[in-house]
Amino acid sequence: MSKTEGFVLALSGGIGGAKLALGLCRILPAGALTVVANTGDDFEHLGLAISPDIDTLLYTLAGLDNPELGWGRGDETWTFMKALGALGGETWFNLGDGDLATHVERTRRLAAGEGLSEITDDFRRRLGISARLLPMSDDRVRTRLRTAESWLDFQDYFVRLRCAPVVREIAFAGAEKARPQPAFLAALADQNLRAVVICPSNPFISIDPILSLPGVREGLRACAAPVIAVSPIIGGKAVKGPTAKMMTELGLPVDAVAVARHYGDILDHYVADEIDANEVGGLGVPVTLAPTLMRSLEDRDALAGVVLKAAG
Amino acid sequence: MSKTEGFVLALSGGIGGAKLALGLCRILPAGALTVVANTGDDFEHLGLAISPDIDTLLYTLAGLDNPELGWGRGDETWTFMKALGALGGETWFNLGDGDLATHVERTRRLAAGEGLSEITDDFRRRLGISARLLPMSDDRVRTRLRTAESWLDFQDYFVRLRCAPVVREIAFAGAEKARPQPAFLAALADQNLRAVVICPSNPFISIDPILSLPGVREGLRACAAPVIAVSPIIGGKAVKGPTAKMMTELGLPVDAVAVARHYGDILDHYVADEIDANEVGGLGVPVTLAPTLMRSLEDRDALAGVVLKAAG
Repeated sequence: MSKTEGFVLALSGGIGGAKLALGLCRILPAGALTVVANTGDDFEHLGLAISPDIDTLLYTLAGLDNPELGWGRGDETWTFMKALGALGGETWFNLGDGDLATHVERTRRLAAGEGLSEITDDFRRRLGISARLLPMSDDRVRTRLRTAESWLDFQDYFVRLRCAPVVREIAFAGAEKARPQPAFLAALADQNLRAVVICPSNPFISIDPILSLPGVREGLRACAAPVIAVSPIIGGKAVKGPTAKMMTELGLPVDAVAVARHYGDILDHYVADEIDANEVGGLGVPVTLAPTLMRSLEDRDALAGVVLKAAG
Repeated sequence: MSKTEGFVLALSGGIGGAKLALGLCRILPAGALTVVANTGDDFEHLGLAISPDIDTLLYTLAGLDNPELGWGRGDETWTFMKALGALGGETWFNLGDGDLATHVERTRRLAAGEGLSEITDDFRRRLGISARLLPMSDDRVRTRLRTAESWLDFQDYFVRLRCAPVVREIAFAGAEKARPQPAFLAALADQNLRAVVICPSNPFISIDPILSLPGVREGLRACAAPVIAVSPIIGGKAVKGPTAKMMTELGLPVDAVAVARHYGDILDHYVADEIDANEVGGLGVPVTLAPTLMRSLEDRDALAGVVLKAAG
């Protein structure tokens, strides 16, 4: 896509978001997609800097992902974890041998003074990804959850406790002082921006961290391009992950409408599943109905096409 | 072996030394062997603390070693290195996926404030090794080599440049201020010490770093138990590694006698290969001749038996 045809900015978390990002990457001309990744899930484990959503996007966009697990790499072995367990190391967070290379090399480069965005950009180029991939910020933001018992770090909740605790409140520690990626804010103000796509990721823990950064909501409201969200809820259920459980615990109805209302006035257009046709009538923004479940590569391409068409 | 029967202290580098250490471990009663490992080869790579000789000893004594490579683990996969290469990371030092667990967990525990000896002792227990395994020091000592061109860090010389540069001088940076492992010095002064075995490792880069620590030579001279070295040179050749090449470059004859002379007055007994019978006559210390090439497990046990018999 030439500059005059514009580019698309996608906000994404991991699995579901990465699927649509892949569709967008596949149907847009090379270089016409910029993906902003949530880094609220990032954490330090075994001394390594781990960025789960960046990595899922890297692996998915490079065709290296593991469709069975929904995270990590497809061509993976697990020798490290087995050996680590034998040495008494922590094994609650599974790290594949190939995946580990990403964490070790990222950690080394961060320690050498490089920024997360610089490292991520180099990784995506080396993996042959044409889309730009921006961490939402190079500054540290950490999603924390107040549960019925206590405040928990994200990965403690998500992986170690398998999302079992009841969530009362979600906070993004560091967000108020974090600087959104300059290229992200610049993209929002760019005259060539054709559309902003909020991918069907968990609104509360994948998209909200991005929206919580200073200036992002304002940038989304002010930008000339339409902001289009794709519902992660299909027929009252989340495709994967704790979105539905979390909505119930936060006192929200588990439906596509509640997600659109959660995004509120940043939204210009909403894409919901055909199955939810009866619900999304009175939203106050234009709605496109489409099959939104992405099983095949063709599903990803088709939904990306629907989203771009809705952008006009 | 009960306390009254005494214990054996072995000084060792990697491959060759670890073979004899395994033999000693196998034929001595549980707990009657303490191995002191060279840490002059240790280095930091990819942000990880790597201790090659400790690891070769851990894997060898635990039966996890890779007899084909002579280093690393037998049950190894190499997915990490492949993925690291694709990300542009440094691949000149090969790290297996299982081996990596040792480095990652060690690095994490060192960063948390534990000492190398504490971590090593925990690792050897978890791997089911009955012998004690002591790093020669918890302080940083780094072997460096002055070559025809410049000073090189050990692994640059040993792995990256495959021992190609001509060695003029060897230094152990930090050795003069390093504190030998207290348990090592205590063992030398222990009345129950039955023998000190200098394993058939490279004298210049595996054993000398240990001997260079303050008080070690004095401790060896003063200890009541006999100090017995096993020649790493058999018939004018080294079994593996750069020992022979290095001896030539340092202006020494490549033979078993030169190694014994190098150890000098710390030696009470020397074990050389039968093939070198004609050479080792005038050494001034008792010599035991035996088959010293360790191909099989039985060879290791047999040589260990010869060494213990020589200790009387």
